[in-house]
Amino acid sequence: MDSTTIKQLDQQFVIQSWSKQANRDAKVVTHSDGIYFWDQNNKKYFDMNAQLIYANLGHKHPRIMNALAKINQLEISAPGFASASKSKLAKKIVELAPANMAKVYFTTAGAESNEQAMKMAKAVTGGYKIFSRYRSYHGSTFGAGNLTGESRRLGSEPSPPGFVKFDMPYVYREYQQYTSEQELSAQYLTRLERQINCEGPETIAALVIETIPGSNGVLLPPDGYIKGIETLCRRYHIMMICDEVMSGFGRSGEWFACNHYDVEPDLITFAKGVTGGYLPLGGVILSEQVAKHFDTNHFSSGATYSGHPLVCEIGNAAIAAYEELDTINHVKRMEKVLGERLQRLLAYKYVGDVRIKGLFAAVELVKNKVTKEPIIDYGSDYGKDTQGYMGAFTKLLSEEGFSTFNHESNVLITPPLTITTAEIHEAMDLFEKALVAFEELYPEMEEGHALNL
Amino acid sequence: MDSTTIKQLDQQFVIQSWSKQANRDAKVVTHSDGIYFWDQNNKKYFDMNAQLIYANLGHKHPRIMNALAKINQLEISAPGFASASKSKLAKKIVELAPANMAKVYFTTAGAESNEQAMKMAKAVTGGYKIFSRYRSYHGSTFGAGNLTGESRRLGSEPSPPGFVKFDMPYVYREYQQYTSEQELSAQYLTRLERQINCEGPETIAALVIETIPGSNGVLLPPDGYIKGIETLCRRYHIMMICDEVMSGFGRSGEWFACNHYDVEPDLITFAKGVTGGYLPLGGVILSEQVAKHFDTNHFSSGATYSGHPLVCEIGNAAIAAYEELDTINHVKRMEKVLGERLQRLLAYKYVGDVRIKGLFAAVELVKNKVTKEPIIDYGSDYGKDTQGYMGAFTKLLSEEGFSTFNHESNVLITPPLTITTAEIHEAMDLFEKALVAFEELYPEMEEGHALNL
Repeated sequence: MDSTTIKQLDQQFVIQSWSKQANRDAKVVTHSDGIYFWDQNNKKYFDMNAQLIYANLGHKHPRIMNALAKINQLEISAPGFASASKSKLAKKIVELAPANMAKVYFTTAGAESNEQAMKMAKAVTGGYKIFSRYRSYHGSTFGAGNLTGESRRLGSEPSPPGFVKFDMPYVYREYQQYTSEQELSAQYLTRLERQINCEGPETIAALVIETIPGSNGVLLPPDGYIKGIETLCRRYHIMMICDEVMSGFGRSGEWFACNHYDVEPDLITFAKGVTGGYLPLGGVILSEQVAKHFDTNHFSSGATYSGHPLVCEIGNAAIAAYEELDTINHVKRMEKVLGERLQRLLAYKYVGDVRIKGLFAAVELVKNKVTKEPIIDYGSDYGKDTQGYMGAFTKLLSEEGFSTFNHESNVLITPPLTITTAEIHEAMDLFEKALVAFEELYPEMEEGHALNL
Repeated sequence: MDSTTIKQLDQQFVIQSWSKQANRDAKVVTHSDGIYFWDQNNKKYFDMNAQLIYANLGHKHPRIMNALAKINQLEISAPGFASASKSKLAKKIVELAPANMAKVYFTTAGAESNEQAMKMAKAVTGGYKIFSRYRSYHGSTFGAGNLTGESRRLGSEPSPPGFVKFDMPYVYREYQQYTSEQELSAQYLTRLERQINCEGPETIAALVIETIPGSNGVLLPPDGYIKGIETLCRRYHIMMICDEVMSGFGRSGEWFACNHYDVEPDLITFAKGVTGGYLPLGGVILSEQVAKHFDTNHFSSGATYSGHPLVCEIGNAAIAAYEELDTINHVKRMEKVLGERLQRLLAYKYVGDVRIKGLFAAVELVKNKVTKEPIIDYGSDYGKDTQGYMGAFTKLLSEEGFSTFNHESNVLITPPLTITTAEIHEAMDLFEKALVAFEELYPEMEEGHALNL
C-alpha cells in the first residue's frame, strides 16, 4: 500500500489520540534503523522520543527481529495457563526489580497496570483513598485518568470517590524559601503528612507517584523527597506505588528509577520499555508482602491478555538485548554527553531549565528567564488545535529532523537507549539550529502575567 | 524449559487473575492444533472455550502462522503515525460493521475499549451518567469494572458518580407474567424509560449493553428488546454502546451480534476475536455521527499502543482467515448441530436451561428443575476458593478433556468457530459423560431456598 493511500485511509477510518480528526497530516514511517526513521517523503528523523518513550532499543534491533520471526512457534494460552515465556519473564523482572519485589501481574499497557496496582492496594489495606500528585500522568482510563494530576484527567471525570491530590516539589519553579533540596523536600513532606492525617490514614490505600514525572517535564525529585515518601507510607501503612511506565527498564540509568533513591516500593508499574515497544505489554511488580496477601486472598481482577505468551517472549528478547548492550552503564555514560549539551542550551533566550536523569530529559521553555513565565499558559495544550509557541518550536524541530514530543512548556528528549555519543551531538546540533530559528522567528514575545507554576 | 520448571516458576513469580495464588495448579499448553490442545501430561483437550473466547480461529491457523512469521518486516510507530496495517484494518472493520459505522479507535483490550467508548459518549453528549445492566461484565479497570453489573465489579468500587444500573430480562428466570417475548421486552423497556426519566435524560451520556451478555450465561434478549433499547436511546439522545468484545467477529453467527437485531449503535466495542487471540488488540467503532463530532473537537484520550502496526497486521490476517473460511455461514450451520446437542441436555437432572446464538452457548445448572434454584448461590464464586457443585462439574468436564469456563451457575460452550460437525458431536459426548458422572456423584442435592434469580 503506498503512503498516499495509507494516509488517506488513516484520515478516513482511524481515530487518533489527543487530537481533532479533521485534516490531520499523519506521517508514515516507511523505514527505520536504530535511532532513525524515514517518512513518506524519505525525510530522515532522529527518533528523539523513541516513538512514545518505548522504542528504547531503537528500530529493527536484530535480537528482536529474530525473536519476532519465531514467535509463531509458541502456543497461545489464556492467563490461567502457565507458559515458558511468561514464567521466564516474570522471574527476570523480579530479579531486576528492587530486592523486596516478589511477583508480577502482567497487563497490556501502562494505564491498565496503574488500574490494577490500585485495586491490589485497596484489597491489601482495606482503604479506598488513593493519593497522587498534581503534574503527574498515569493513563487515560477512568482509574488511571483520575490518578492523573493535570489537564489530561478531564475526560475521565467525574472522579471516583477517594482520589486525592497533593502537590509535588518543582525545583525550577519553587515558590517557597529553602536553603537546600533536603529542606525543600522536608517542607513538602511535612505538608503531605498533615494532609494524610486530615484525610485519615486508615482510609488511604495507596500513594502513587511517577518516580520521575515524565511527560510533565522530567521533574526530578529534590534530595530526600522520594525516601521521605517511603517513610510516610511506612509510618501510616499506606502502599507506595511507583509508576515506572516511562522511567523503567533503563530509561533513568537504572533498571527502575526508584533504584536511585534507595526505596523499596510496595508496587511498581511498568510497560513501554519492557518490550522496547515491539509489542504491547505492561504489568505490576508486587512486593513480597503484597504478594503474600494474595496467597490466601483472591486477586479479584483479570484480563484476557494477561501474560500473553507471544508478547512475553518479546519481553524476554528485549531484556536480553538490554543486558547484552550493558544498557544501564551505557545510559549513564550517555547521560553525561547529553547533559553537557543540555547545559549549553541555557544560553538561549527562551530556555528556562533543562533536566536529565539517564536518558530521560526535558527542556523547559519560558517567555522570560527572569519572571519564568511559561512559554504557553498552563493547561492550554489540552483539547486545542494549536499549541502556540510550543507548536511553532516543535515544528521547527521536526523540520530539522528532530522528532519528539512536547507537553505544556516542555520538550522531551528521550531517545532510544542505544544512542551513541556521535548521534547525541548530531541530534543536539539540530536542536540548537531549531532554537536559533525560533529566536529569529520570535525576537520578542508577548508576555502575559508571570505565573509561577 | 520443561513443564515442571514452567509450573514452578509460574507458581513462584506470576500473579494469576481471579484466584488466590497459593497452590495453584496451572496447566501448561505444550502443543495445540485446531480446536485441540495438550497439557504437560500429554492429555488432550477440546478447547471448548477457545481459551477465553478469543481463539476463534483455533490454534496454529496457517494464515496467522504465516503472518506472524513476517511481522518483523513492519515498522513500529507511535499512534500519531499512519501505517498500512492500521489503515487497512480500520477500513475493513468499518466495512464489516453496521452501515452507520465510520471510524475505529484502537486499543489493546476489551476493558480499555469500553473505557474509551464511555469517554467518547460523554464528550459527544455532555452527559456524565452511564447506564448499564445487572449481570453484565465489561472488564475490570475502574470504568469497565463499574460498568459491570455483577460481583466482579466489587474490586473496582467505590464507583465514580453517574454509573447507574438497570435490570435486564432473564427469560428462563422471569418473575413476571407475560404472554410473549415482545410483551416481556415491553415491560422491561417501560421500566427502563421510567428510570431514564427519573435520572434526567440530559444527564445520561450512554447506555451500555453486552448485546448478548456472555460470561453471565449467554442471556439471549427476548424479541424486540434490543430494538427497543435503540428506540429509547434515540428518543432521549443517549449514545447506545454495544459491547461486542465476546460476541463480535462471528461468534454469534453475524460479524457483530447487533446485526441480529436490526440496530445501529452509536459505538461498538470489540477485542478478542479480532486477532483470534494471537496478539492483544481491541477497539471502538464509531458511528458517522460520533466520528463527525471529533472532526472539530479533540478526542482527549490516548494510549501508547493504540493501533500498534504489528498487532494490527495480525488483525488483518485473522479477518482474512474468517472470510476465507466463510466463517459466518459456517457458524450458522454449526449452531444447528450444537443447538440440537444442547436440547438433549435438558433430559439431564441438573440442566435447567440451554441457550445458543451462533457458537455462543451456555448450559445453566440448577439444583431443582421445578424451583429452578441455581446450583450455586448467586455471587458465591467471587473471591472464593471452591465453587461447590460448579467446581465439581467443571472438574469432571476437564477430566473428560472438555476445557471450558464457568461463572455463576453457567457453563460456557464457545469453541473455536472453525469447529466441525464431527468435533461438536465428539465434544458433546464428553459433556454428556461428565453429566452422567455428575449425577452419579450427586444423586441428590442439598437444597436451600428457591431463589428465583
